[in-house]
Amino acid sequence: MNDDTYTAVQYGLGPIGSRIATTAHETGFEFVGAVDIDPEKVGRPVGDVAGFDTDADVTVTDDAADALVADPDVVFHSTGSSVEAVAPQLREIASAGANVVSTTEELSYPWWNAPEVAADLDAVAEENDVTVLGTGINPGFVMDTMPAVLSTPMASVDAVTVERVQDAGERREPLQKKVGAGVSVETFEEEIATEAGHVGSTESVAMLANALGFDLDGIEESIEPVVDEGGAESDFVTVEPGDVAGLRQVAHGSVDGETVVTLDLQMYVGADDPHDRVGFEGDPPVSVTVEGGYHGDVATSAVVTNVAPNVVAARPGLRSMLDVTTPSFTRQARR
Amino acid sequence: MNDDTYTAVQYGLGPIGSRIATTAHETGFEFVGAVDIDPEKVGRPVGDVAGFDTDADVTVTDDAADALVADPDVVFHSTGSSVEAVAPQLREIASAGANVVSTTEELSYPWWNAPEVAADLDAVAEENDVTVLGTGINPGFVMDTMPAVLSTPMASVDAVTVERVQDAGERREPLQKKVGAGVSVETFEEEIATEAGHVGSTESVAMLANALGFDLDGIEESIEPVVDEGGAESDFVTVEPGDVAGLRQVAHGSVDGETVVTLDLQMYVGADDPHDRVGFEGDPPVSVTVEGGYHGDVATSAVVTNVAPNVVAARPGLRSMLDVTTPSFTRQARR
Ligand SMILES: NC(=O)c1ccc[n+]([C@@H]2O[C@H](COP(=O)([O-])OP(=O)(O)OC[C@H]3O[C@@H](n4cnc5c(N)ncnc54)[C@H](OP(=O)(O)O)[C@@H]3O)[C@@H](O)[C@H]2O)c1
Ligand SMILES: NC(=O)c1ccc[n+]([C@@H]2O[C@H](COP(=O)([O-])OP(=O)(O)OC[C@H]3O[C@@H](n4cnc5c(N)ncnc54)[C@H](OP(=O)(O)O)[C@@H]3O)[C@@H](O)[C@H]2O)c1
Repeated sequence: MNDDTYTAVQYGLGPIGSRIATTAHETGFEFVGAVDIDPEKVGRPVGDVAGFDTDADVTVTDDAADALVADPDVVFHSTGSSVEAVAPQLREIASAGANVVSTTEELSYPWWNAPEVAADLDAVAEENDVTVLGTGINPGFVMDTMPAVLSTPMASVDAVTVERVQDAGERREPLQKKVGAGVSVETFEEEIATEAGHVGSTESVAMLANALGFDLDGIEESIEPVVDEGGAESDFVTVEPGDVAGLRQVAHGSVDGETVVTLDLQMYVGADDPHDRVGFEGDPPVSVTVEGGYHGDVATSAVVTNVAPNVVAARPGLRSMLDVTTPSFTRQARR
Repeated sequence: MNDDTYTAVQYGLGPIGSRIATTAHETGFEFVGAVDIDPEKVGRPVGDVAGFDTDADVTVTDDAADALVADPDVVFHSTGSSVEAVAPQLREIASAGANVVSTTEELSYPWWNAPEVAADLDAVAEENDVTVLGTGINPGFVMDTMPAVLSTPMASVDAVTVERVQDAGERREPLQKKVGAGVSVETFEEEIATEAGHVGSTESVAMLANALGFDLDGIEESIEPVVDEGGAESDFVTVEPGDVAGLRQVAHGSVDGETVVTLDLQMYVGADDPHDRVGFEGDPPVSVTVEGGYHGDVATSAVVTNVAPNVVAARPGLRSMLDVTTPSFTRQARR
């Protein structure tokens, strides 16, 4: 291990955590510990669980304290979506003096929905001189950080709309089920609209509004089915015309009753023009399109590892992607 | 003046400096001084010269020291393109304890072409606990900062191409002349290719390469005419078929002889699909398009004023757009 190598602990080794650990390993982070409560994973070498080759003798433990004694520079945290639920884990990490980059959606901008948890985590992080930050592709980049940056050349911004349209048919079967592909509209209203839904829209609205200087008076969310017209199909499902191909989730932020931030997420089987698009009303109007859209899973692990050096260097406390230095791809992480 | 108001000096009141001052005034910066050597401007109120209304009694002086005694938080600097030429001005500002945001193209990333000037400015800025930074739309954003940020969700980047295609026919007459619109190919080779050309391409290549972790072995630039095929015309010029409609300037950065960064700038009368486009080869490939492209002049003053609070808060020294916190539109600049 060189003196300029970052040391890391992977906390949570599900599909996303495993991918993060693999990407981080390739980027030059040296794993000194790994945590997961899944009995299938505990006691096994981290590379074996996550899927990368390493000589390092690091095994997965279910006791975070065991991993944190190695005093890592950064902990990649990926165990759940609720900031309330993961707060004790984050407190323990910060108290051990390690920086945290987490995929917990609600941590990406917790000041709107969970200001008390946020204040508490901020205090713990500051006391221990470390930075805690939540990120990923969405929330974390496509609907908040990216549009914020794309507004830099604007002299005025009246409103912003971000649209992310994904072809659920290209994704794993659980995701297709989750968005309701193949069910009837009634079943969707009963089972999907109440259950599913992307976590993090409110956080993205609040974060983007903050970047653009909108003092929001409210955020509203809605979920509706995307009804199939032509009989879309994937490897896992065939959608009958009139049935549900997937979902559309829209979140609005408003100032004085006027909508100023609109985030429109559509995930359905058969989306024939997947893309991410940012549109600004303002001086002058601007429209930016990512053809095909950023890839969900690759992108999340990439955002997390790419921004980790910026997080380590950031001002201590609970921070968001707006508070770190300009993020970009990181080829080799070196202090 | 509130305690949380930023104070500013405008240094250079040409078209760009005047626009910056106007935008900054609207964003809440309070001007406490203004500098220009043009005798037509000296002694006049800054709002009168720049084009905004203000009660403040601030007149343009040709002696920078006179303006700097007001101890501004930030100086907006906009007098020239050569970092060598403006270095004495920047030294004086930094020595007076003010942060600087400048449109000097070569200052946007001076470490490649002018490492000694850069080291000297860095030392002066650090000694005086201020930050000095060069930016604008290009260099400063479209071909460097923006592609750097757009690479954040990528797991690997093999090469990047940025294309900026602008319809010169929509721009001011001097710009159309500058790009050679209406001249013959011979005249272009003799007068335009040697004279004109966008300043800042090398800086953008070096900055983007640095962000993406490419250790360049060289940067090459070329300028060629865009030859008109159909008789393009603007308010100022009609281009005969076979004559020059404008220019195309391409800069390449290479690693081990392979081109990894390509910046392709095209400015010609009759460009029918103006745009900014970033294309990455990597995992996965990504293509992002700004329809119509960012507007040149509005965008430069916007980038400068929008990023000013980030510059004031940045680590002292000579910095680039990669070193400030995530830039975005700034509605009201407040400490
Ligand atoms: N921001 C974004 O863009 C983004 C993108 C993708 C994913 N995410 C989020 O990132 C999180 C991880 O994703 P995933 O698909 O990998 O989730 P997952 O399949 O639920 O995996 C989580 C892993 O962490 C383990 N775990 C749970 N609680 C733990 C604890 N208290 N201590 C240690 N380990 C614990 C789980 O073990 P068990 O299986 O035994 O519970 C599992 O191995 C999810 O919340 C997901 O929604 C965010
Ligand atoms: N990065 C970008 O994207 C970007 C975009 C646009 C412009 N720029 C650059 O920004 C600079 C300003 O643009 P512009 O169009 O406004 O240029 P300009 O027309 O040359 O205006 C410069 C102004 O500064 C004055 N000046 C020159 N030297 C001075 C000195 N030593 N002290 C005080 N004042 C001085 C000039 O006065 P005189 O007229 O008497 O010389 C003039 O009023 C240029 O170098 C331009 O290339 C960069």
